[in-house]
Amino acid sequence: MSAPKVRLEDVLAPVAGGLERMRSIMIEQLTDHSASVRDMTDHISRFRGKQLRGALVLLAGEATGNATDEHPQVAAIVEMIHLATLVHDDVLDGAEVRRRVACVNERWDNQVAVLLGDFLYARAFALSTELSSRLASRVLSETTRRLCVGEIDQSQRRYDFEMPQEVYESIAGAKTATLYAAACELGARYPGGNEDTGREMRALGWELGLSFQIIDDCLDVTGTQEAVGKSVGNDVEDGKVTLPVLHVYAGADENTRAAIRDAYTAPGIERRAKHLREVVDLAPGVDYALARAQELIEQARLRIAELPPTPARTALDALTAFVLERNW
Amino acid sequence: MSAPKVRLEDVLAPVAGGLERMRSIMIEQLTDHSASVRDMTDHISRFRGKQLRGALVLLAGEATGNATDEHPQVAAIVEMIHLATLVHDDVLDGAEVRRRVACVNERWDNQVAVLLGDFLYARAFALSTELSSRLASRVLSETTRRLCVGEIDQSQRRYDFEMPQEVYESIAGAKTATLYAAACELGARYPGGNEDTGREMRALGWELGLSFQIIDDCLDVTGTQEAVGKSVGNDVEDGKVTLPVLHVYAGADENTRAAIRDAYTAPGIERRAKHLREVVDLAPGVDYALARAQELIEQARLRIAELPPTPARTALDALTAFVLERNW
Repeated sequence: MSAPKVRLEDVLAPVAGGLERMRSIMIEQLTDHSASVRDMTDHISRFRGKQLRGALVLLAGEATGNATDEHPQVAAIVEMIHLATLVHDDVLDGAEVRRRVACVNERWDNQVAVLLGDFLYARAFALSTELSSRLASRVLSETTRRLCVGEIDQSQRRYDFEMPQEVYESIAGAKTATLYAAACELGARYPGGNEDTGREMRALGWELGLSFQIIDDCLDVTGTQEAVGKSVGNDVEDGKVTLPVLHVYAGADENTRAAIRDAYTAPGIERRAKHLREVVDLAPGVDYALARAQELIEQARLRIAELPPTPARTALDALTAFVLERNW
Repeated sequence: MSAPKVRLEDVLAPVAGGLERMRSIMIEQLTDHSASVRDMTDHISRFRGKQLRGALVLLAGEATGNATDEHPQVAAIVEMIHLATLVHDDVLDGAEVRRRVACVNERWDNQVAVLLGDFLYARAFALSTELSSRLASRVLSETTRRLCVGEIDQSQRRYDFEMPQEVYESIAGAKTATLYAAACELGARYPGGNEDTGREMRALGWELGLSFQIIDDCLDVTGTQEAVGKSVGNDVEDGKVTLPVLHVYAGADENTRAAIRDAYTAPGIERRAKHLREVVDLAPGVDYALARAQELIEQARLRIAELPPTPARTALDALTAFVLERNW
């Protein structure tokens, strides 16, 4: 993967105003009366990230002629749910780090991460109940449920090197694509009606989100921390067998399969993802996974082509390029 | 505290049918398509407990003449939120146990507890969006936020031996009484209207819940695992300074204060709650806390006395006795 040709900020220009509004709503929502909570929500501003999910609410709204004054609020709720999932992922990452580092303050850290994530979920749901329509509460609570189920299913499929691709996709879809899909559906449908457009945009969100997750999985086995901007190799450490590895494993002889399993599981291996790359050529798996991501993006582009020509449609199209070309 | 004079099952007889319905709704809601999730929700059936919060929705509904067909569903949502908080408390308890036991499988356990709690919250909110009125979604998402803030504030007040009683009560209230208050308010008000009755019943729930928490805090420093049915001494282990200890600390000389602080913090102490009891007489603190619980219950009883005479009113009154007399 080369340096991205697309600057995200430029892509999102057509909804820059809505994103600004979304960000102020988030700041307002995360400013609690409790000083302890404020300390923590200040702390998580480091998670800001790409805010693609919130942007999709706004872009889908503009692209379908369905944008309302409440869209930035819906976008803020979607981003807060995403933030909650990141904070809870931290609990698991914390455990990860602890396997190598002395168990100092582990309890405090875990406690903070769990409670703060819960606070964010609660705040997001509370905000959704203030909207004029119940659609966002309905779609997003069901989405959150699916997202949790995806994560739980994933945790139960650790070290499953023979997982069928459709199981991988359904799990990756549930844990990631489902929130993209909800963002696009709500953008196109909120506060109600437009069910056909909603379904179409939901499918677009799913394809974008699944593609995003597949690229993420590729970056985790091939990327460097410097380029990706977060620690890599986590999936191998965690026992998550992702599409590039599944593909290589499926086509490998028994010796190579044993080497892959050892890279994931044998005691004493320090940097498992690096070790995995040393014992097996992952390139064919990465190529295969990228081709699958490309295929999903092609489907998404066909849907985008059906939309009326607007700056938001152009932005959605550019976003598909960003998802494919990004290396962070 | 002597053996309870009140059998909870008898007290709740007037809403036995509603509780039965509430339990089937919970079973239905916790039965997910995902086999992994089902394994976990089966596992948490061990958390069943007293279901007082759900019962209060039903009792408050009956006692105010406001019971509807949807009340058991509201009760189930309240209980599922409570269950989610218990599951997330487990993450913290897990960390606690890990301080003494080898870190085997800690990651998997943490992951499961965090995701399962999230699943329960999401399921609860999703169910609330299916109700005919938005009131339950609104009240319960805001309640969950407060509950999280209470827990966060508590975590930041660990080892604070000079916490004013009103801070202790506001934290204990936020983390426990707020859900009791919401249960009673929704019972009395759902699907809407009845704001005055709602406020009155909310105050009753707050008093009951705060009293319940104070008794819990007393049992944690004085009770035995056999009697209470769960591990005791957790608050001392966790650095939570509860009302009985705050009261004793406030009236103690500097030597005794140092001994109390050491019991909470000095390295090498194995059973801190037991040690605390050995270095200081907690009885005056427990008496003081029980008197405060009693006072809250008296206030609650005055409110109950204002209700029209019904079996539900009698049950609410008996419940206040149960809260005070329980030793589990």
